[in-house]
Amino acid sequence: MPLLIERLVVVGVGLIGGSFALALKQAGVVGRVVGLGRSRGSLDRAVELGVIDAAEEDSARAMEGADFVLLAMPVAQTQSALARIAPHLMPDALVTDAGSTKQDVVAAARAVLGGGVARFVPAHPIAGAEASGAAAARADLFRDRKTVITALDENEAAGVDRVAAAWRACGAEIRTMTPAQHDGVFAAVSHLPHLLAFALVHHILRHDNAVTLFDYAASGFRDFTRIASSHPEMWRDICIGNRERLADELARYRAVLEDLQARLAAEDGEGLERIFAEARAARDAWLTRTEGGVRR
Amino acid sequence: MPLLIERLVVVGVGLIGGSFALALKQAGVVGRVVGLGRSRGSLDRAVELGVIDAAEEDSARAMEGADFVLLAMPVAQTQSALARIAPHLMPDALVTDAGSTKQDVVAAARAVLGGGVARFVPAHPIAGAEASGAAAARADLFRDRKTVITALDENEAAGVDRVAAAWRACGAEIRTMTPAQHDGVFAAVSHLPHLLAFALVHHILRHDNAVTLFDYAASGFRDFTRIASSHPEMWRDICIGNRERLADELARYRAVLEDLQARLAAEDGEGLERIFAEARAARDAWLTRTEGGVRR
Repeated sequence: MPLLIERLVVVGVGLIGGSFALALKQAGVVGRVVGLGRSRGSLDRAVELGVIDAAEEDSARAMEGADFVLLAMPVAQTQSALARIAPHLMPDALVTDAGSTKQDVVAAARAVLGGGVARFVPAHPIAGAEASGAAAARADLFRDRKTVITALDENEAAGVDRVAAAWRACGAEIRTMTPAQHDGVFAAVSHLPHLLAFALVHHILRHDNAVTLFDYAASGFRDFTRIASSHPEMWRDICIGNRERLADELARYRAVLEDLQARLAAEDGEGLERIFAEARAARDAWLTRTEGGVRR
Repeated sequence: MPLLIERLVVVGVGLIGGSFALALKQAGVVGRVVGLGRSRGSLDRAVELGVIDAAEEDSARAMEGADFVLLAMPVAQTQSALARIAPHLMPDALVTDAGSTKQDVVAAARAVLGGGVARFVPAHPIAGAEASGAAAARADLFRDRKTVITALDENEAAGVDRVAAAWRACGAEIRTMTPAQHDGVFAAVSHLPHLLAFALVHHILRHDNAVTLFDYAASGFRDFTRIASSHPEMWRDICIGNRERLADELARYRAVLEDLQARLAAEDGEGLERIFAEARAARDAWLTRTEGGVRR
């Protein structure tokens, strides 16, 4: 198989960018990997770890000869990152991203690239961990996980295929949606749960006896709040970037809690048990369907 | 060491009751274990599994010669279970329980036992799993976990010591609180998270595209909702039994969500990031403190 990518530039060499680089190297489909980032220290560390081949803080030098770019910074930096690399993009270079939101990322890309947005193929790998940084990167992070590609009307089929091939080379299963569909789905199944988990830890902290409360928190609390150990800046950007859909989900969830509050006040044990039983059955059926497919 | 317990009666031979029996057997501190329950089939199965030595549906026969009783049914059944065994309680027999709520359990015990409540020493082992039933029981379920004993003014020191010794023989670390303190703490760190997890699955189910949503739910969703696979009847009883404290926690949590909703509307990324960062730091510090101590 010929090299899929001659020179890959990873903008933001953290967990996601680093894992993408490692996976493509392991698959033998990339020539040279150059990391471009804000922090010299963490870029150098990524080189030492063998995650990237070279580190650059200068966009022009990084982009020289690059035929493929992955944006892997918090989504609110998409516009400034693209603005820095856009002047140096080769005509046939492709750009993809790994952002957890897509409408805001696409809007940023259109603002910077104009007609050139044809070479930007948005993607979202459904993988991650509360760990962050290049030291947490691993070649199998995307294996057997879905990567959603939200192709644009402007994209050419060949470009979409090449971006899909790169994600597939990381072991990902490709799914397609529109950016709007994507943001609706992930507001419900990812962004809302993250917000609720952060909110629960915040709620506990607001108690006068928070120290005692943490002392008695056990495995249920630990698993419920695992995603509250996620990267604050990344999740700030996701919440703001997808704020309309997230606000809609949050409002609907709050209505569910209002209903549960009323059932508690009415001592409606029967109604609570019915809701709990339906939830348990649905979750257990989901686990059975996805067995082996949903991993950490 | 002499036998701590000659004849143990376990009322409700599920995950908790079965694990208590197995742990005491493994520790060599119990003579004979008799299971008392509603369902002949599951009692017989518990005998086959070696979790209990004998099964009884008749309270009088079960209680003959019993010097120690564990109540391990959903908490709303405490009063009726105690009413069935009370006439057959030997004068020096002790009763403990494993309920996740304590004020309602104590009220039920007082109602049935009157002055005899002196021999009821309430306990709550902080252990469990979304699995239920005797088949899920294991001797190490309580090992290195806290068991909270909420002793009553009526209890004699010797009785409290003996109940504590039994839980300690299961490997548990003993903590003490009043029933009211207990219910306040667990409303916040256990009962509320369970309610929120059930509510999230319920919320997803109410979407027209619920099937698609579940298809894209990943490991964050799985861990957040793990406790939504808990036993619906057990959790109905806990929510109703501790409804006042739980309602208070739920109301305060809803106020946090109202604040987050306002921050989304105001695009207050800075405020969100501050809340997320505080939550992450607090959770990570908690994990460090409890490392090795918080297990499934």
